[in-house]
Amino acid sequence: MSTYTAPLKDMQFALHELAQIDQIAALPGNEEASPDVVSAILEEAGKFASGVLDPLNRVGDTQGAKLADGKVTTAPGFKEAYRQFVESGWNALKCDPNYGGQGLPYTVATAVEEMWHGSNVAFALCPLLTTGAIEALMLCGTPEQKEKFLPNMVSGKWTGTMNLTEPQAGSDLAALRSRAVPQTDGSYRVFGQKIFITFGEQDYTENIIHLVLARTPTAPEGVKGISLFLVPKFLINEDGSLGERNDLQCVSIEHKLGIHASPTCVMSYGDRGGAVGYMIGDENRGLEYMFIMMNLARFSVGLEGVGISERAYQRAVAYARDRVQGKALGDQQKGAIIRHPDIRRMLMDMRAHTEAMRGLTYVVAAAFDHAHSHPDEATRKQSLAFADYMIPIVKGWCTESAQHVTYVGVQVHGGMGFIEETGAAQHYRDARIMTIYEGTTGIQGNDLIGRKTLRDGGRTAAAVGMEIARIDDELAQLPGEAFASMRKAMGAALNAVKTAGEYVAANAQSDTRGVFAGAVPYLELWGVLCGGWVMARAAVAASRLLAAGDPDREFLEAKIITARYFAEHILVKAPGLAREVVGGGASVLALADEAF
Amino acid sequence: MSTYTAPLKDMQFALHELAQIDQIAALPGNEEASPDVVSAILEEAGKFASGVLDPLNRVGDTQGAKLADGKVTTAPGFKEAYRQFVESGWNALKCDPNYGGQGLPYTVATAVEEMWHGSNVAFALCPLLTTGAIEALMLCGTPEQKEKFLPNMVSGKWTGTMNLTEPQAGSDLAALRSRAVPQTDGSYRVFGQKIFITFGEQDYTENIIHLVLARTPTAPEGVKGISLFLVPKFLINEDGSLGERNDLQCVSIEHKLGIHASPTCVMSYGDRGGAVGYMIGDENRGLEYMFIMMNLARFSVGLEGVGISERAYQRAVAYARDRVQGKALGDQQKGAIIRHPDIRRMLMDMRAHTEAMRGLTYVVAAAFDHAHSHPDEATRKQSLAFADYMIPIVKGWCTESAQHVTYVGVQVHGGMGFIEETGAAQHYRDARIMTIYEGTTGIQGNDLIGRKTLRDGGRTAAAVGMEIARIDDELAQLPGEAFASMRKAMGAALNAVKTAGEYVAANAQSDTRGVFAGAVPYLELWGVLCGGWVMARAAVAASRLLAAGDPDREFLEAKIITARYFAEHILVKAPGLAREVVGGGASVLALADEAF
Repeated sequence: MSTYTAPLKDMQFALHELAQIDQIAALPGNEEASPDVVSAILEEAGKFASGVLDPLNRVGDTQGAKLADGKVTTAPGFKEAYRQFVESGWNALKCDPNYGGQGLPYTVATAVEEMWHGSNVAFALCPLLTTGAIEALMLCGTPEQKEKFLPNMVSGKWTGTMNLTEPQAGSDLAALRSRAVPQTDGSYRVFGQKIFITFGEQDYTENIIHLVLARTPTAPEGVKGISLFLVPKFLINEDGSLGERNDLQCVSIEHKLGIHASPTCVMSYGDRGGAVGYMIGDENRGLEYMFIMMNLARFSVGLEGVGISERAYQRAVAYARDRVQGKALGDQQKGAIIRHPDIRRMLMDMRAHTEAMRGLTYVVAAAFDHAHSHPDEATRKQSLAFADYMIPIVKGWCTESAQHVTYVGVQVHGGMGFIEETGAAQHYRDARIMTIYEGTTGIQGNDLIGRKTLRDGGRTAAAVGMEIARIDDELAQLPGEAFASMRKAMGAALNAVKTAGEYVAANAQSDTRGVFAGAVPYLELWGVLCGGWVMARAAVAASRLLAAGDPDREFLEAKIITARYFAEHILVKAPGLAREVVGGGASVLALADEAF
Repeated sequence: MSTYTAPLKDMQFALHELAQIDQIAALPGNEEASPDVVSAILEEAGKFASGVLDPLNRVGDTQGAKLADGKVTTAPGFKEAYRQFVESGWNALKCDPNYGGQGLPYTVATAVEEMWHGSNVAFALCPLLTTGAIEALMLCGTPEQKEKFLPNMVSGKWTGTMNLTEPQAGSDLAALRSRAVPQTDGSYRVFGQKIFITFGEQDYTENIIHLVLARTPTAPEGVKGISLFLVPKFLINEDGSLGERNDLQCVSIEHKLGIHASPTCVMSYGDRGGAVGYMIGDENRGLEYMFIMMNLARFSVGLEGVGISERAYQRAVAYARDRVQGKALGDQQKGAIIRHPDIRRMLMDMRAHTEAMRGLTYVVAAAFDHAHSHPDEATRKQSLAFADYMIPIVKGWCTESAQHVTYVGVQVHGGMGFIEETGAAQHYRDARIMTIYEGTTGIQGNDLIGRKTLRDGGRTAAAVGMEIARIDDELAQLPGEAFASMRKAMGAALNAVKTAGEYVAANAQSDTRGVFAGAVPYLELWGVLCGGWVMARAAVAASRLLAAGDPDREFLEAKIITARYFAEHILVKAPGLAREVVGGGASVLALADEAF
């Protein structure tokens, strides 16, 4: 019934007013990202998302990927869609032009990627992983490795994967056991089993480039003994042609709650003498490299949350407009359920969360661009620190919010939401993995408290808080209840973050476990604060445009209304979340293990 | 890996300390419900749940119910389990002994029913619906109708269904169109299509007694023209034997997100001349009767939330104890993930929600018993008013909490939670219907604000609030941080409810839509308050028992710790929820329909 439509107008608003894409286009190397070019790209991407990917979303769910005799067959239509995807150049959007990429700013690529997640999140995982592998190679590969593998990965002729997890080593990568034995020719033989490998096998492409974490024989134990290896499905001959089949295989795929079109593979390396692999970067620094990639992958998973939330919202709105049921309070006659106050509350809740997530991810994407390309070193550093601080918030908060949004999306449909054919339930199931893979919300919370807040003595956290607090002056200057309400809620939330942050800093030494027991509430607290911040910024920008006579009044007024909703219904959770952090550890930790 | 174990000790604690089952056993007619008898019943029920129902839960999910040629085949093992269920007398626990029931108090039946929902919620739906049909017949049937149908329904030889929904009439029953045409013999011919009919067809029993809402030819439009009909699958001969097949059939079953073992049927009545039906009670009073039944069904759905939450909690604890991953903060060596502060926070969150839900449902069940059997009329009235007020809270808050608990249950499992074989995902999917059927959470919120709070000018709401507020004195007398913390959080929550309630009362006339836009937050606010109340009562009781030298110290101390967790991590949401109610309607309603 409902089809995905890329929310181009909202995206453009977020790009211009929040991510300030004009500043990004002015950075060296970004000259091509003119407003016209960006508009054209977004429009084309929107067509591809609606025309090619969205129609496959349900068949991907019902048919899924299948494994037989070590070969994965993707759902009907996916292979052809992938071919069109790479032929249209979508795979290479943010890649280095030296290897065939289009070198577009991260911010633009982010808006485009949102559409892939919105229209078909299972499909989008394959390019997401390839991009991660490309980034790792760009960062740590030798010139020869880059020359040999990158052009075909950038073009999409080959895909890439990340192989981290093993049965005994999930969040705890220190426990991984896969081995890599050096050979006289400088290559390695890789042995081990990896699980949860997204698109570890597929029928899209002639080759797959696996990046695999493993230990060399002399490696120290724990995280300091992990190296990164490139292990291609087919070896590459000197002339660049495909050589012999490497000793690796997909031995099973998982039966999952969602994202059925994305094969989640158990990969076995070295069953017949060892898989040929090449070390990427320095020995024993694999985890460090993986974490750089993982940061970007975490950002992308946060973005999945945005995309699927938008999709769920659109579907719910379409149903609420179409379904006639009863006479809403205050109405004279029967009407569509969108007239009912509670349905409207749910739609506003979905909408406000989605816009806040989008604003936040685009703002963080812009920080990546500044960190990458700004001519001033101090600005680069500051942008990088901001982006690093934001990664766990984007990952943790956007994916948790996506659970809520897809949940509400089912609820808007009433009984029909529970029926699979309706489609709302698929978003709910597909979204469920997002708070888990690339580091659970708990891991994100620990990262935010540990590495991001405590490690530099709270300096970055304070700086980000001060940046956010600047919104107060702007809100104070604007008349009307909506802005007063936003200002009040932002003030309370800033205060809550300050209180929680001070508690974390003061007690991290003396009560480490108690402080980390509050890691997820601390992350959620930052999430709603940041969401409130970008929404308030959007409202301020809308107000400015309205004052300047912008004719698109309804659209701009909706920004102010939605920001007010966010302040009064979502941001108001901040003090309660702070309360969970401040002194909340005792009741979390008091019970004996046996008493559960 | 994990099997369901009825939480008998927690149940007994809730029965004795919260529901005060000793008072219930003292009511006239409840003489048989001695502590020994109750213990024996609970133990036997626990064995049946663990031994018979729990092992079928996953096969029910994977195989589901199937329809072919109008016949439903339930999942392997279900038919046999049903046979054992009724043979053991579980179907008749709270039914009238005059018709073969055991006449046990509602409170005891509630604890038992929790186990069915905990071990196999899809299985439990069939007896749940039969009980509803029995109640309707008890209430409004003629002596002849009771004699003819009740004994076989009570014994479980026949099952019962509720047929309300039609494609165009879901929450809005006024829109229903099924017709019942009177015949000269006093019976009716029923025509129409009903959807979402749980166990509308099955292979358990020789007959199914459908209760169907339909309109007579002279009926007024809207809700005042709906009558209730009994329409058996097979007609009953004068001698009580099965007669001819009635003109009704299951034409399809739904493909659902969860509860696959429960066939959700589209029923067609009267395709070949009309299904023979018998009017139950007075003409045009069908909706009124349905609502009495529905109140009890709503309570049972809230109880489903308790059962499935307990199940999800047990599974999560088992996994967290078993799964070794990393070294927890502050620990010297690797251990099970239950050692990690964030895992512990999640388990405490599941546990605290589940115990609060259980306490609340048992307390409300006790009010049913007092309303039914107390010799003093004023007490009966007061208990009924309390129970009526609580029904939407039990239904709405317990089912919403069950979403959260089953969600967290998946999260505790990390990547394994997303794999269907693990089992956590099934609970998450099965639970999803609970906030929808028997009235969505929005409907419950409207009921709580409209019928329950405003209709009597807030009298009952105020009385319930005052009853809850009495806990303050008890908390004030107990020393230590935990009780001080509970007292503070309860005080803030009571204040929040008062503020929200006053707002609702003051603005219901002038801003009806705005007030009802806050219906669900208002319900959630009451939910956390009531949850905090029963948890605080549990902690007070535990403290009293400890002081009296009860040797089960760890169990009782855990009650205090869990109550403190509830206060500091869940009850603290109350002020934010109140803020959503107070003045929150404007931003919900401001957007034009077209602007979504």
